[in-house]
Amino acid sequence: MAPLLPTIHDPSALRHFDRAQLKQLADEVRSCVLDNVSRTGGHLSSNLGTVELTVALHHVFNTPHDRLVWDVGHQTYPHKILTGRRERMPSLRQIGGISGFPQRTESEYDTFGTAHSSTSISAALGMALAAKQKGEDRHAVAIIGDGAMTAGMAFEALNNAGVYDCKLLVILNDNDMSISPPVGALNRYLAQLMSGNFYAAAKNVGKSVLRAAPPLFELAKRLEQHAKGMVVPATLFEQFGFNYVGPIDGHDLDSLVPTLENLKHLHGPQFLHVVTKKGQGYKLAEADPVAYHGPSKFDPAIGLVKPATAPKLTFTQVFGHWLCDMAAQDSRLVGITPAMREGSGLVEFEQRFPERYYDVGIAEQHAVTFAAGLACEGLKPVVAIYSTFLQRAYDQMIHDVAIQNLPVVFALDRAGLVGADGATHAGAYDIAFIRCVPNMSLACPADEAECRQLLSSAFAQDHPVAVRYPRGAGAGVATLPGLDALPFGKGELRRTGRRIAIVVFGTLLYPALKAAEALDATVLNMRWVKPLDLDLLLKTVATHECVVTLEEGAVMGGAGSAVVEALQAADVQLPVLQLGLPDRFIEHGDPAKLLASIGLDAAGIEQSIRERFDASEPAGKTRPGAL
Amino acid sequence: MAPLLPTIHDPSALRHFDRAQLKQLADEVRSCVLDNVSRTGGHLSSNLGTVELTVALHHVFNTPHDRLVWDVGHQTYPHKILTGRRERMPSLRQIGGISGFPQRTESEYDTFGTAHSSTSISAALGMALAAKQKGEDRHAVAIIGDGAMTAGMAFEALNNAGVYDCKLLVILNDNDMSISPPVGALNRYLAQLMSGNFYAAAKNVGKSVLRAAPPLFELAKRLEQHAKGMVVPATLFEQFGFNYVGPIDGHDLDSLVPTLENLKHLHGPQFLHVVTKKGQGYKLAEADPVAYHGPSKFDPAIGLVKPATAPKLTFTQVFGHWLCDMAAQDSRLVGITPAMREGSGLVEFEQRFPERYYDVGIAEQHAVTFAAGLACEGLKPVVAIYSTFLQRAYDQMIHDVAIQNLPVVFALDRAGLVGADGATHAGAYDIAFIRCVPNMSLACPADEAECRQLLSSAFAQDHPVAVRYPRGAGAGVATLPGLDALPFGKGELRRTGRRIAIVVFGTLLYPALKAAEALDATVLNMRWVKPLDLDLLLKTVATHECVVTLEEGAVMGGAGSAVVEALQAADVQLPVLQLGLPDRFIEHGDPAKLLASIGLDAAGIEQSIRERFDASEPAGKTRPGAL
Repeated sequence: MAPLLPTIHDPSALRHFDRAQLKQLADEVRSCVLDNVSRTGGHLSSNLGTVELTVALHHVFNTPHDRLVWDVGHQTYPHKILTGRRERMPSLRQIGGISGFPQRTESEYDTFGTAHSSTSISAALGMALAAKQKGEDRHAVAIIGDGAMTAGMAFEALNNAGVYDCKLLVILNDNDMSISPPVGALNRYLAQLMSGNFYAAAKNVGKSVLRAAPPLFELAKRLEQHAKGMVVPATLFEQFGFNYVGPIDGHDLDSLVPTLENLKHLHGPQFLHVVTKKGQGYKLAEADPVAYHGPSKFDPAIGLVKPATAPKLTFTQVFGHWLCDMAAQDSRLVGITPAMREGSGLVEFEQRFPERYYDVGIAEQHAVTFAAGLACEGLKPVVAIYSTFLQRAYDQMIHDVAIQNLPVVFALDRAGLVGADGATHAGAYDIAFIRCVPNMSLACPADEAECRQLLSSAFAQDHPVAVRYPRGAGAGVATLPGLDALPFGKGELRRTGRRIAIVVFGTLLYPALKAAEALDATVLNMRWVKPLDLDLLLKTVATHECVVTLEEGAVMGGAGSAVVEALQAADVQLPVLQLGLPDRFIEHGDPAKLLASIGLDAAGIEQSIRERFDASEPAGKTRPGAL
Repeated sequence: MAPLLPTIHDPSALRHFDRAQLKQLADEVRSCVLDNVSRTGGHLSSNLGTVELTVALHHVFNTPHDRLVWDVGHQTYPHKILTGRRERMPSLRQIGGISGFPQRTESEYDTFGTAHSSTSISAALGMALAAKQKGEDRHAVAIIGDGAMTAGMAFEALNNAGVYDCKLLVILNDNDMSISPPVGALNRYLAQLMSGNFYAAAKNVGKSVLRAAPPLFELAKRLEQHAKGMVVPATLFEQFGFNYVGPIDGHDLDSLVPTLENLKHLHGPQFLHVVTKKGQGYKLAEADPVAYHGPSKFDPAIGLVKPATAPKLTFTQVFGHWLCDMAAQDSRLVGITPAMREGSGLVEFEQRFPERYYDVGIAEQHAVTFAAGLACEGLKPVVAIYSTFLQRAYDQMIHDVAIQNLPVVFALDRAGLVGADGATHAGAYDIAFIRCVPNMSLACPADEAECRQLLSSAFAQDHPVAVRYPRGAGAGVATLPGLDALPFGKGELRRTGRRIAIVVFGTLLYPALKAAEALDATVLNMRWVKPLDLDLLLKTVATHECVVTLEEGAVMGGAGSAVVEALQAADVQLPVLQLGLPDRFIEHGDPAKLLASIGLDAAGIEQSIRERFDASEPAGKTRPGAL
């Protein structure tokens, strides 16, 4: 048959497809996803898992009039391919290219920007109730994974939604759990739902249906009616006020399409439980969905291959090694992750110290207060959490940890820009939102060796300390094998120059040192945002004419502001140039290019300093990075 | 009988009491609560509701070896009375007195400090698992209300706890819902559980048991066994992996004591559903638990009386009136509260605009993302939320509202110090944590009239804006009847003086004006933290020798830092004194006294300025308020 995908410029074309055409289209979309991701890198397993669901949704619902809200959103490549962005797929996650997540500015089909998990039900409920208030006849559909369902805000939304009569459909996209073990009671419960005879039978019926050909619709419809109410007398979701249907096979268009069509005509909040397989249709990804979750470029015929030369150690790995070494030495250490075992570098820790490892699910709020509870009993919890996800537990950090001054260590991965994931995942605000909280300390290692040492420093304290480090590798400074700590609250004079003192917080130390060579500037490696090393700072600036502060974090309220506050408190009047992240959201793209684009590479730092403090700057250059 | 309470210096004395003694003790505790709260003010209804539960818990469990974690914690007066603090009750919530919440620094029986809701299960789970890891034989008990159960983090904790074999008991303290309507699906579900014949029957059996006298224990035990599993085949809580028991009468010690004793010996996570009545035992509070939730001093024989002179309008009321007036004018306005209808001033709005009023339950995360969803559809949501509770929705503010630049108005009540509620409720950090986020604007009215105008300014914008205002009344400046807005991002020159420019953000304008009279200083009323009125600021400081910034918020990263950043960016070198909240937690007490204690009254402001900028300061004074 002739390819259908090239004829699809928007989803309206799908509305009139018959079932056979939809299936063919799904196959083409799957190939398109695989082809593109293997060239650009990006999320793979999750997108292969949502192909049929995406096709069915755009077939049944009148998008964009009806609203689709994709939770997390990294599974929206099929959606992007079907909504006019197929030809832009090669630009995925690159500067100026399309985002790896839905974005309202990118397409009218992206009704809500997502990336952090578990927001979809809240947003879709808002849309459904707005439609009701405005008298508009439209559906709002939230598509949410079983992992995302463990987050508190998904439950807050279910609890709220269950009482309204509006056109809300929640689709639970329940990934096959044969590989990753279920985490938490909810996933265990979902596994029970699926382990019933029904689901296995439905799968087989589905297969025989496929062989037997039409009348597919009637069979599928009966299948669907069969599903409803069959599993348990009252599911969890019915207790929340939803009409529960499922589980059905999320790769079977003969189940999906009629079920969705039926649900469209029912009143009140609807809940559809579909079961999909991550990596579906690409054997290598099916076999190892974790490895193929977010691969770099690869040859689909061969699959992922190990790089010939070992890549540089990432900060995440430095943290993972430190955690194991410290755990071996101190039995009080407990490691906590909100569903980020791989991303946060806890795989080895879990294997070696299973009884001290807690994956609490996507539950940042609980993770932090749970850590506080452990700390009350004399244990030393280390919460491994991305900077951007600590935003989810900000109140818990203040109210449960800082006010009680409990010795919890926050290992903040992904501090600063994060590259391809873009603005939603940037760790831009942690310096500002942590340092204003009493009792909190905050360290910012300049390289791998310091990261390990400052984690030891943090662990040695009897109060809460966060250590922030960026995504990926740093300057490549080898870590020392021991567990020696750096002094608490002390920085170092890294380079002695004249006139200009560059006061650096974190990994931008290395470009700063380059710039300092050209400028013959002094460089302080501060290591701690809070407490600030006042002795070092005041002693140094006393012999300089001007000060530059530098951090990979928001300038507003950041570490540079801490310096400016301290100088004012000490009644020192000097010109200060504050360099860091500007007051706008930075989109996705190559991390080095992004930093350069905002003047935070060596050349940009030098240029900004020359423009502010040196009349003899080269002419004709713009000033990219200043406040 | 001789009073028992005076003989109780710690709960060990209760362990050997017989049932009759426990009942007598409960009556005495109830009188003690009523007597004290009527003299000091404080929380009443909730404490009258937990008397028997508290007595039973300290009788059955080996406190403080066993850990009690009281969710929210404002219902812990009986607990405080029984754990050695009876004689300190007259100092409740006053400077230097005992806290209205549990505090680890106050008593070893206060195992976890609470105040914000829904933290107890996470903390108790941490304690239970720490005991397991350390091989200690102890129980951890979380006591949580039905309102607090609607918050996401309670569900995150349930989901996580349900899979562990540890000595955790969760007690759901389900308040009688005859007065306040249930909010959300969970409360509807709980009402269904209670509406079963069982509960009514159990109550009657309880009564006849009391008449028949012993063998009470056997009867009560049968009653308890009867309760288990009788209501529905599988409750929500069983689906989360808990063993569910209940509902039982939380005022009936003959039910409570044997049930708790049984639960103590069962393995795995246990869930006990008790039903209590807010205000129990004091007729006036039973009839109106909302009015008696947190009364000021009153005569128990008479009850609350309306004050003879009308009190000054609070900022909360100013907001409530503005919301109704703006809603009448603009049909796009939608009002959202996370379970704070009374506290946030939405009572009238709900009555007049029920179809545009959303109480989403204790669910700050959902509230904000729900607002984002409404805004996507062209509505104009106003989220009424305390500053301290926006900490719970920080990520949602960034990720769902600010990144998408949606026009959501955040009405931030309780910004600054909050008085008797203390550090947990202080709105100290919002300036720092909001202003670092791109796309956000932040206004800080100096008085009631400006509050109304700046709310109108915020509502007129097409991007997210927060308006922060303090608890209680302000300077008493009458609001204008219209809906006129103040210019966006513009402040005003309020007083022209010489040498010193005081740059004020918010309600401290009035003490600043007083201080300025004495100092002949210039005063700027900035009105907006972000965007900052650079024109006004730079023009003013150009003719002054030094600058003072003033705000009721954390100095670190706050509005004063925005001023310092701006001066540096403009290459203006002037000495700046930053006044605001210091880098430590401020305990409970009278608001005016607290402000004075940190130098933020007129005298303190004047003194700090003189000490920093005027050699002719009076000798022998300390410097209380500077950074």
